[in-house]
Amino acid sequence: MTVASPATRTEHDSLGTHEVPASAYWGIHTARALTNFPISGTPVGAHRELVAALGAVKLAAARANHDLGLLDERRYEAIARAADDVRSGALDDQFVVDVIQGGAGTSTNMNANEVIANRALEILGLEFGRYDEIHPLDHVNRGQSTNDVYPTAVRLALLTVMERVREATAALADSFAAKAAEFRAVPKMGRTQLQDAVPMTVGQELGAFAVTLREELARLADSRALLCEVNLGATAIGTGITAHPDYRRRAVGHLAEITGLPVVGATDLVEATSDAGAFVQVSGVLKRTVIKASKICNDLRLLSSGPQAGLAELQLPARQAGSSIMPGKVNPVIPEMVNQVAFWVIGNDLTVSMAAEGGQLQLNAFEPVICHGLLQGFTWTAAAFDSLRVKCVDGISVDEARLAAVVAGNAGLVTALTPLLGYARAAEIAKAALGGAGDIRTLALATGLDETVLDALLRPETLANLDPSS
Amino acid sequence: MTVASPATRTEHDSLGTHEVPASAYWGIHTARALTNFPISGTPVGAHRELVAALGAVKLAAARANHDLGLLDERRYEAIARAADDVRSGALDDQFVVDVIQGGAGTSTNMNANEVIANRALEILGLEFGRYDEIHPLDHVNRGQSTNDVYPTAVRLALLTVMERVREATAALADSFAAKAAEFRAVPKMGRTQLQDAVPMTVGQELGAFAVTLREELARLADSRALLCEVNLGATAIGTGITAHPDYRRRAVGHLAEITGLPVVGATDLVEATSDAGAFVQVSGVLKRTVIKASKICNDLRLLSSGPQAGLAELQLPARQAGSSIMPGKVNPVIPEMVNQVAFWVIGNDLTVSMAAEGGQLQLNAFEPVICHGLLQGFTWTAAAFDSLRVKCVDGISVDEARLAAVVAGNAGLVTALTPLLGYARAAEIAKAALGGAGDIRTLALATGLDETVLDALLRPETLANLDPSS
Amino acid sequence: MTVASPATRTEHDSLGTHEVPASAYWGIHTARALTNFPISGTPVGAHRELVAALGAVKLAAARANHDLGLLDERRYEAIARAADDVRSGALDDQFVVDVIQGGAGTSTNMNANEVIANRALEILGLEFGRYDEIHPLDHVNRGQSTNDVYPTAVRLALLTVMERVREATAALADSFAAKAAEFRAVPKMGRTQLQDAVPMTVGQELGAFAVTLREELARLADSRALLCEVNLGATAIGTGITAHPDYRRRAVGHLAEITGLPVVGATDLVEATSDAGAFVQVSGVLKRTVIKASKICNDLRLLSSGPQAGLAELQLPARQAGSSIMPGKVNPVIPEMVNQVAFWVIGNDLTVSMAAEGGQLQLNAFEPVICHGLLQGFTWTAAAFDSLRVKCVDGISVDEARLAAVVAGNAGLVTALTPLLGYARAAEIAKAALGGAGDIRTLALATGLDETVLDALLRPETLANLDPSS
Amino acid sequence: MTVASPATRTEHDSLGTHEVPASAYWGIHTARALTNFPISGTPVGAHRELVAALGAVKLAAARANHDLGLLDERRYEAIARAADDVRSGALDDQFVVDVIQGGAGTSTNMNANEVIANRALEILGLEFGRYDEIHPLDHVNRGQSTNDVYPTAVRLALLTVMERVREATAALADSFAAKAAEFRAVPKMGRTQLQDAVPMTVGQELGAFAVTLREELARLADSRALLCEVNLGATAIGTGITAHPDYRRRAVGHLAEITGLPVVGATDLVEATSDAGAFVQVSGVLKRTVIKASKICNDLRLLSSGPQAGLAELQLPARQAGSSIMPGKVNPVIPEMVNQVAFWVIGNDLTVSMAAEGGQLQLNAFEPVICHGLLQGFTWTAAAFDSLRVKCVDGISVDEARLAAVVAGNAGLVTALTPLLGYARAAEIAKAALGGAGDIRTLALATGLDETVLDALLRPETLANLDPSS
Repeated sequence: MTVASPATRTEHDSLGTHEVPASAYWGIHTARALTNFPISGTPVGAHRELVAALGAVKLAAARANHDLGLLDERRYEAIARAADDVRSGALDDQFVVDVIQGGAGTSTNMNANEVIANRALEILGLEFGRYDEIHPLDHVNRGQSTNDVYPTAVRLALLTVMERVREATAALADSFAAKAAEFRAVPKMGRTQLQDAVPMTVGQELGAFAVTLREELARLADSRALLCEVNLGATAIGTGITAHPDYRRRAVGHLAEITGLPVVGATDLVEATSDAGAFVQVSGVLKRTVIKASKICNDLRLLSSGPQAGLAELQLPARQAGSSIMPGKVNPVIPEMVNQVAFWVIGNDLTVSMAAEGGQLQLNAFEPVICHGLLQGFTWTAAAFDSLRVKCVDGISVDEARLAAVVAGNAGLVTALTPLLGYARAAEIAKAALGGAGDIRTLALATGLDETVLDALLRPETLANLDPSS
Repeated sequence: MTVASPATRTEHDSLGTHEVPASAYWGIHTARALTNFPISGTPVGAHRELVAALGAVKLAAARANHDLGLLDERRYEAIARAADDVRSGALDDQFVVDVIQGGAGTSTNMNANEVIANRALEILGLEFGRYDEIHPLDHVNRGQSTNDVYPTAVRLALLTVMERVREATAALADSFAAKAAEFRAVPKMGRTQLQDAVPMTVGQELGAFAVTLREELARLADSRALLCEVNLGATAIGTGITAHPDYRRRAVGHLAEITGLPVVGATDLVEATSDAGAFVQVSGVLKRTVIKASKICNDLRLLSSGPQAGLAELQLPARQAGSSIMPGKVNPVIPEMVNQVAFWVIGNDLTVSMAAEGGQLQLNAFEPVICHGLLQGFTWTAAAFDSLRVKCVDGISVDEARLAAVVAGNAGLVTALTPLLGYARAAEIAKAALGGAGDIRTLALATGLDETVLDALLRPETLANLDPSS
Repeated sequence: MTVASPATRTEHDSLGTHEVPASAYWGIHTARALTNFPISGTPVGAHRELVAALGAVKLAAARANHDLGLLDERRYEAIARAADDVRSGALDDQFVVDVIQGGAGTSTNMNANEVIANRALEILGLEFGRYDEIHPLDHVNRGQSTNDVYPTAVRLALLTVMERVREATAALADSFAAKAAEFRAVPKMGRTQLQDAVPMTVGQELGAFAVTLREELARLADSRALLCEVNLGATAIGTGITAHPDYRRRAVGHLAEITGLPVVGATDLVEATSDAGAFVQVSGVLKRTVIKASKICNDLRLLSSGPQAGLAELQLPARQAGSSIMPGKVNPVIPEMVNQVAFWVIGNDLTVSMAAEGGQLQLNAFEPVICHGLLQGFTWTAAAFDSLRVKCVDGISVDEARLAAVVAGNAGLVTALTPLLGYARAAEIAKAALGGAGDIRTLALATGLDETVLDALLRPETLANLDPSS
Repeated sequence: MTVASPATRTEHDSLGTHEVPASAYWGIHTARALTNFPISGTPVGAHRELVAALGAVKLAAARANHDLGLLDERRYEAIARAADDVRSGALDDQFVVDVIQGGAGTSTNMNANEVIANRALEILGLEFGRYDEIHPLDHVNRGQSTNDVYPTAVRLALLTVMERVREATAALADSFAAKAAEFRAVPKMGRTQLQDAVPMTVGQELGAFAVTLREELARLADSRALLCEVNLGATAIGTGITAHPDYRRRAVGHLAEITGLPVVGATDLVEATSDAGAFVQVSGVLKRTVIKASKICNDLRLLSSGPQAGLAELQLPARQAGSSIMPGKVNPVIPEMVNQVAFWVIGNDLTVSMAAEGGQLQLNAFEPVICHGLLQGFTWTAAAFDSLRVKCVDGISVDEARLAAVVAGNAGLVTALTPLLGYARAAEIAKAALGGAGDIRTLALATGLDETVLDALLRPETLANLDPSS
């Protein structure tokens, strides 16, 4: 028989015994998970929002059990304080199981149960491991299952990181809107399919970025409602087995109060326990947001290409020397970073989709990878958007003279004349202009068009359809 | 100089001349596209909804131009009748350009313009190709650009196919709900992570499928609003160049009236013309729906595995002999088909995502592949769901005796006793039961539990938490 | 009891009876599949290569059975002639089951068995449906299972379409190589991260496209070996049940002879029957090829952007009028089409990946969607590459004067001087040049660099490191 | 002007000055990158293999420059020792830039240059920041560009992690092979499409897993050749600008010697510098490997389902208590973890694909996300496979009695009789057997089949086609 060294304590479970560091708040279930899942090196504790959410759920459950007389005052007080410590972040370093884990989140829930039990024991002045006094399962996990606690906590965590993306998106849109106002009436050539199209203004171009990002705010808000619907009280598979008949109502109510969020119970708990639909939906919303951001960053990189052999319409602020070999080179490193975050998030969306599709019967065993993929995706996106705003968009400038010259000589102006000339004759003029026969105005005058009418049609404000009052 | 054979007519454009079959309603632009894009072999006309939508948009545009005095009565009447013929499907075989095409939909729009022009000429008793009378661009396409006409039509087409998926999803959910009612109180073992968990009923399991599918109805409805927002009147890049100032309001109004849909104009037309966000959103919604359907079909296949060496809880109706070598074998071919449709739709979602991300500046040149991917995905999904309902779910039966026997002897029943015994003692009993020491009831009685209490706890209705009144 | 109308005949299977059109070569199994899978509207017969491959496999099997005395001369002759008709394409319109089907290809195999049986009956002067004489299963399918016939045929079909992509890729690479030779010494600015980098030549840029595409030829060739390994003789699950002990060796041998391909039997038939790895591999190879093509087309579109407000370095041949509203506009429609094909193929690769991952136990039930995705992907890619070559690359031209001017005045030339000046001083010069203080040569002379040395360093051939002898 | 606090030193670059911690080996370029890319929180130093590879490349470059007289003895010795320290891992904590970064790896290369320069200064007894003595760019980066150094290092790093996956895959395959040998002749029912098919043995089933994994070893080996082809010497865009004509040959030679790998120079450096094809290929190979592993783990979970209400054919070793609520429950947590790693890796493959497709002109700016995605994917896969082997496969056991009973009574045995009875009669017998009329042997005897013949056909070894000698 193993004799525990002073540095460890021995814990028991149905599989036998296992040594645990004497100073660890976590116990045997966590210890086994550590040896089973040495995959990513990233512990669950790295997701602050998830740990906080687990604390909130455990606190809500303890309150409900206490209300119902299923947890005595002494134990309740200790568990509640311990759960609060988990919420606050004081015990993050005790959430040591890997983010990539089998078991549908059981190891994360076990980790939480053990940390709270031992912290509660500590509060009561008892030794770690005195589970006869406060048991991780019989007391901390009372009326609960991983299968309701874990997805509930994941949803709460997602609400937090999603809010961060919402704020970052709103601020980024505001930054583009400010730039759009600054360059409201600066004419430029619009392009479709990378070919010169018709005139517009820089304000219109950058303003469209603001508008398209602001649309995301509504989509993110829509998702909040889905995430606020939790299956707490479902226990193992949605039938609420082992939980007091009134536990669910109380636990959900406490959770809403603790978090300040409009948390409600799902209508069909069997469905809610097996379904990963809300995660797929949220992942899709994030994917759409980063697709838009990636398209915008592609445009920023293209419009700022140069400085001499490119379009050189926009100047992005220089943030670092661009090359170890080419002196003076400056690259659009911030948009490039955003593109890469977008590619990553789109990859995570696929991971989430496959994990959701792979769920079986009454539970999706792959929630941990869904959780990690989503929390990571939202966190990276918020950080990337903040960097994009502060390090790039806020400092955009334009070369008005260059832009104006390009517009003035562009054969695309002929489009404005088609209502007068018809498509076929206009096409001939465009061809002549591109062939060097003169500019559009000159060639159009030669067709007999009235000069006053022509000049009115070719005014940049008219071409761009700028609302004179705005 | 080419002399046209009697079987062809010669048409002109800015690139030169091209022969067109004399009987073709389409013209030179379509002819060039045919040689440029010999890719999929599927013509645009295969998408009935898209052709109908193009007809509606062209009709709305003609009405607006007529209102504004930009199209005389004779031409308007002919164009309007021709557009109606396009709507009705009478000219589908004239939409011959490939669904996979460069040019952001220009070839599809050109195809529509030419077909309508020639059909209008025919209505007026004139020869095909008399574009001096009715011109595909100057008259049919008046005040329009591919860049507003095409995405507007794609949105209308999507509304149609999406409605078909909505109906198929609702009917499929109803079918599951009916089966859930039929097997409401039939007990079975619930499973998490493919391991025996705790009892539930077949009704709860199938009912969850109904519930989860019904959630999709709301998501699909949400998407309708996004799709109803169109950029008609934006013309080339959103500035409305070449269109009469009042054209947009009128054209959108006519379109709403013609289609009976709550179509509205986008607020920022520059954004609306470049953005593919609505397509990404709709694709994501469809992806979520098929992920759920795929998970359900995985479950159906698993639960009906057997007939002897599998779970054999559900029987799916036999639809065809399952094997060319194994007599008597019957396979779950309908759910297998649905899985494959789901995988295909998920692939299409990736195509749509990449196409959306690849858009540049004032237009997304890749709208044709987005259009084809989405129309195909919705169409296949609706067909697959109908087949799943009629050929499979409606005919599901269960083996009640087998299910009951499995529940009665299952060690998972011990979970119901943990509030009385604690986790550790309950685990010992479960271990003993699995080791052959007896069933849970017998072993629990031996611990001194009261028989009446025990039998109440182990009633199937209690275990499954069936609401006695429902 | 149903009385068959003259237009139909009645067939029987283990599920009962079903009417079949009197003139149909296919029978009851096909008829049931038609009602079960009304999904895509694309019949298996649309994949000419697959039907041909099925004919070859059935012929090889018949020969092996005949060798072994398991098929008499009369039946063998008739079946062999019928299988040849399937190979030739004469019966493609009889392969009517949908490409999207449950059952792991059973319906396709049944369709083939029935068509061959009835065609053989016809050859013998017997009526359709006289299965007592020639039975679709007992004779045509003798010693076979869908589970070995179908994947074997899919592999053969893939070898055919893959060869088409190989040829199209080789020709496309040759086209780029010819253009590279044409513009071998035309200097231009190279760009990294869309910013001006250092000089190179157009020949180097286009030549890299040729090189990168030629690398695909080796990858495609690698895949041939994997596809040539077939599981024919495995029958149901790899144990060869029902097949004569010597059947497999003979059938594979005949297949190699019939097809002229180095077909060999898989070593472990249980593995070979369940594994979809070769399909995943082949799909990955195709994905890589189209990713390269998409990148190249992105570059072509970018380099030909303009004509006035873009880079305008390359001119792509005009293939169709680019716009229904903007006269004279020409768009890069061919590369845009290729991009979209690439996005589609990448989507198909995901479909294939999910289908492969979803296989279970001794068989992958999702081979039909894998088959359709791959055949479609290769077919579209070959068509797209041919169009890209003929309609675009062969006609590329450049604007040498413009390119030379851009190089001459570019601050990026300073990089050539860093070995002499050091990075920091070179950066100052670059900054000065971009600030308008003069060109690099002038500024460098001012630092005291020797004019002869400087001019040697700044020669375009030196800068581009053109091998003088090549 | 800022006065540096004693805790920092001031460094300069072309953008101005920036404070750097006095004790940091890294300098101003790294410092700027830290503020630009606060995204993932994972520093480049977390990828040990990448840092080691950077050290090797820098050492090879220094040797080449020293050979050519471009680096004096004193500087060379110091830089070489510093590069060795980077290789060894002693300076990993100085590689602080985020793995997600814009700039195509420039920040990582700059980080390496600065760390090596300052470490070399330290070796020479000089202060940090004395770049007049040893300059990060003019000396450490001499003849180099990020655009050749970085992808070369990434390839070397990939070779290392790929070897780890190769070893883990080989060991896992061996483990399955050992189990296959152990259960070589244990009969069981094979299943196709989850329905009972025909008999086989557990050894055949597990042996197929070994075979399919061993196929990956060849694919991984194929990839090594692609990765060994490096563009070192290409400098900025492949033209070798700034590098001595003989530098490339020497640098590549030194690199091969230093690493012991068959590193060779790419044939076309312009192509090699812009192409990400090797990364796509390697990613595809890894994807295939994890798809196979995921399929295997799906099977393991399915075959071990139960313990009472599932298939219960295999028993996986218990590794942790499976539930916080259900006592005695044990879940297949190790295979579940592998599934999730597979989903993640498949997501990463998509990220890599999009990043590769997004490359433009002479460089792929998105190599950092490709690098991170691949290094992470290989590392996680190796860890997951080791865990799967040690914690799961090595401990698999089977229930022979149960398996034998299932085979004996299974109607699927009838398939063995079809060569004697024909498909139709065999189907009738199967139907009768499933209907309870008796077992296949009894029913077959009743048709008049000879008992000796029948019993020979129904021997498990015959049915499974076990080679009697093996």
